[in-house]
Amino acid sequence: MDELLSMSIGGAIFSGNSSIEDEIDRLSIKIEEADVHLREKGRDDADGYGWVNLPYQDLTKIIETADWLARSDAIVQIGIGGSALGNRMLVNALLPPFYNELEAPLRRGPRFYLLENSDPATAAAVLNRIDVSKTAFVVVSKSGSTTETIAHFLWVWQIVRDKLGNKAQEHFLVITDPKKGALRKFAKATGCRSLGIPESVGGRYSVLTSVGLATAAAVGIDIEKLLLGARQMDQRLAMRQQTWENPAWALAALNVIHARLGRNMAVMMPYGDGLLAFAEWFAQLWGESLGKNGFGTTPVRALGAIDQHSQLQLYMEGPDDKLITMIDVQNRPGFELPRKIEDDVLREFDFLCDKTLGDLLSIEARSTASALIKAGKPVVYLKIPEISEIYVGALVFFYEYVTALVGLLMDINPFDQPGVEQGKRYIYSLMGRPGYQEYESEVEKYFGICSKFEIIV
Amino acid sequence: MDELLSMSIGGAIFSGNSSIEDEIDRLSIKIEEADVHLREKGRDDADGYGWVNLPYQDLTKIIETADWLARSDAIVQIGIGGSALGNRMLVNALLPPFYNELEAPLRRGPRFYLLENSDPATAAAVLNRIDVSKTAFVVVSKSGSTTETIAHFLWVWQIVRDKLGNKAQEHFLVITDPKKGALRKFAKATGCRSLGIPESVGGRYSVLTSVGLATAAAVGIDIEKLLLGARQMDQRLAMRQQTWENPAWALAALNVIHARLGRNMAVMMPYGDGLLAFAEWFAQLWGESLGKNGFGTTPVRALGAIDQHSQLQLYMEGPDDKLITMIDVQNRPGFELPRKIEDDVLREFDFLCDKTLGDLLSIEARSTASALIKAGKPVVYLKIPEISEIYVGALVFFYEYVTALVGLLMDINPFDQPGVEQGKRYIYSLMGRPGYQEYESEVEKYFGICSKFEIIV
Repeated sequence: MDELLSMSIGGAIFSGNSSIEDEIDRLSIKIEEADVHLREKGRDDADGYGWVNLPYQDLTKIIETADWLARSDAIVQIGIGGSALGNRMLVNALLPPFYNELEAPLRRGPRFYLLENSDPATAAAVLNRIDVSKTAFVVVSKSGSTTETIAHFLWVWQIVRDKLGNKAQEHFLVITDPKKGALRKFAKATGCRSLGIPESVGGRYSVLTSVGLATAAAVGIDIEKLLLGARQMDQRLAMRQQTWENPAWALAALNVIHARLGRNMAVMMPYGDGLLAFAEWFAQLWGESLGKNGFGTTPVRALGAIDQHSQLQLYMEGPDDKLITMIDVQNRPGFELPRKIEDDVLREFDFLCDKTLGDLLSIEARSTASALIKAGKPVVYLKIPEISEIYVGALVFFYEYVTALVGLLMDINPFDQPGVEQGKRYIYSLMGRPGYQEYESEVEKYFGICSKFEIIV
Repeated sequence: MDELLSMSIGGAIFSGNSSIEDEIDRLSIKIEEADVHLREKGRDDADGYGWVNLPYQDLTKIIETADWLARSDAIVQIGIGGSALGNRMLVNALLPPFYNELEAPLRRGPRFYLLENSDPATAAAVLNRIDVSKTAFVVVSKSGSTTETIAHFLWVWQIVRDKLGNKAQEHFLVITDPKKGALRKFAKATGCRSLGIPESVGGRYSVLTSVGLATAAAVGIDIEKLLLGARQMDQRLAMRQQTWENPAWALAALNVIHARLGRNMAVMMPYGDGLLAFAEWFAQLWGESLGKNGFGTTPVRALGAIDQHSQLQLYMEGPDDKLITMIDVQNRPGFELPRKIEDDVLREFDFLCDKTLGDLLSIEARSTASALIKAGKPVVYLKIPEISEIYVGALVFFYEYVTALVGLLMDINPFDQPGVEQGKRYIYSLMGRPGYQEYESEVEKYFGICSKFEIIV
């Protein structure tokens, strides 16, 4: 019954050092160890490693909840970072463009809005777009205390309660830690619906938990297929025990070696508007997992073919400091360019006839890869047959796997984020949270250095 | 009558080398020379330098054309790169969020769509959103031969002509070179409306020409105010003849020095959803202007506060390889968080009461800057009073100026883009354009190297 994955991943692995393949071979033993470690920890459901098991989870409760969500006119998900990016990625890839603009019969489910950034202009605009009495609010925070999310939630909760009184909680779904935190307490106290986020899964690895799947299913994305894709990818990766046969091993090794050679950026450049947010999702996964101990290549988000008109000049002739990944898509909704040019003055474009716009996009991907390779830049070229649930699920699992392997190869914990705590303490102090007053003077002290130069224009 | 600009630009200029201020002082003479060069070439309207004069242009014809555009139900702009990014930036910053979703009375003008990427899914979706008989199509390409733009144009032109016959050209506005190119010929042959792009202005510097301004004015953006902001910025910059008084000089110098010290990334991280596309616009300006001769720092697009939950870990604890610019906004549409927490289980968030969501966003900017500075990372902190026409105009001119100065300081021509030609030749060859057959085998040869490793999953 299963549709079978069929992706190809290849690349040109230039470097200043011609022995790069040998170097990768020398990494082989370490890669194998990292892989064994990853799978063992996954099996134990160790802290941070729980995503390894997500392709095999039972979806019953999530689908039940999604059925309820699907009955509203609009869904507003309140969350930030890992509690929003995965959703944005799924919606961007798997729903029609301009989804929220479409009349109801053309949509597969409710309209879907995110309250993510603490930006009052966006928040006010979202509230203006909905009728709260027909809206489901999905509040997502694993800790239950993410500042932006709680701020949005408190504000929305007051509005809904003012309007709907003691029916307000019937419009809320809380997705949070199964036991701990303020949102869990809130769910217990009000009796509103809730889903748990597995304790062993961190925010940036959580798209295949309730965090990503509940609202995705509600808007008509086939979440069984997402898991099927992830499962197949997992099984393929488990079968391949040679670096040059296992794409996750090969890519992890390539990334480690290129980083050592001074290429400190990992460009993610899918070709197709539907994968724009995939590059965003990747950027969080990569940046937050690997950016520690002075290590970490910087994820650079790009979009083909648009960034050929923005970043390609730099990629071609700027410093050789990037490993560039391009994702091409084989089948795109075909539609044909005119078969014949009728205007004399446009005759020079005859060569475009009998092509499709999709042909053009894939030709651009291939041509740009060739030009970069000719210029001696390392390129990874990944090709999927189509942008669909099964391939998005496969890509998600694949990049989670690669990221974790790179972290382990660099002796980094790819599942923590200690570096964001300082900023949080500072935010709490300026917001006046009890217990954080001591940091206020520190914020001012360091911010003062910002006026090392200060120019009023 | 003029509203006066009031922006502050400051920063913490750490580096491994404590003498960075001295180094910048040593650059002073070169900066002054570059500035004189820039203004002289601008005065002569030399090739590439024409943007220097745009703040002083006469808008009569653009406004006349915009009045005509404003009478349609929807505007579809066909363009890519510099012929789309500036428009996206203006619309994102200066129109309400979810603009196209709003009912007509809540909008200031027609709905606005871009056909930018050669992605058939998006193109089909845009066509489904409009009634061609009530739509104005704006085709933008300076050369008149940009492949993606022409492909979209040929396709749309056929559809509109099939539907509206010899009234079709009444729905088209062409924005292109005043004399040359296929689109100019098309405008002459059909008699459709047209605007010129000044010959001395390149694509990525063209947002304040007809390219950016015509549709902006049509959707209700005050383009006189945009120019006013640019003009005031120009005059302020012209008055300041000391590096540490002139923000463009200071920033250009900082960028050059940090690049020399190995910081090969320029992070642009505005705080506010309305400036997301500003970072995109900056990325093209910066990347395509400076990425040549093996030089060029890579623009990294970020968005505060969202990227605190995605990239901050890396910025804090990853390699010290970035110069990070944050843009804060003083006045945001206020709306208040609840004044009192009524639920016991949420009492721990009392500290959020009596703040606004806008306060939170600015506190996040300030706290994150402090945390980065404490971690020893160089930060530029720019603050504008509000996101409005005058400040967007000022920022545009400011960053164009800084970019050009950096190019001149590095002995780079910031107005060409030779590195994209190779890719274009390859695209033409695969598309079968006469005269480019010879490159086809070259594409295949270099693309073949892509299978240096190739793994079928």
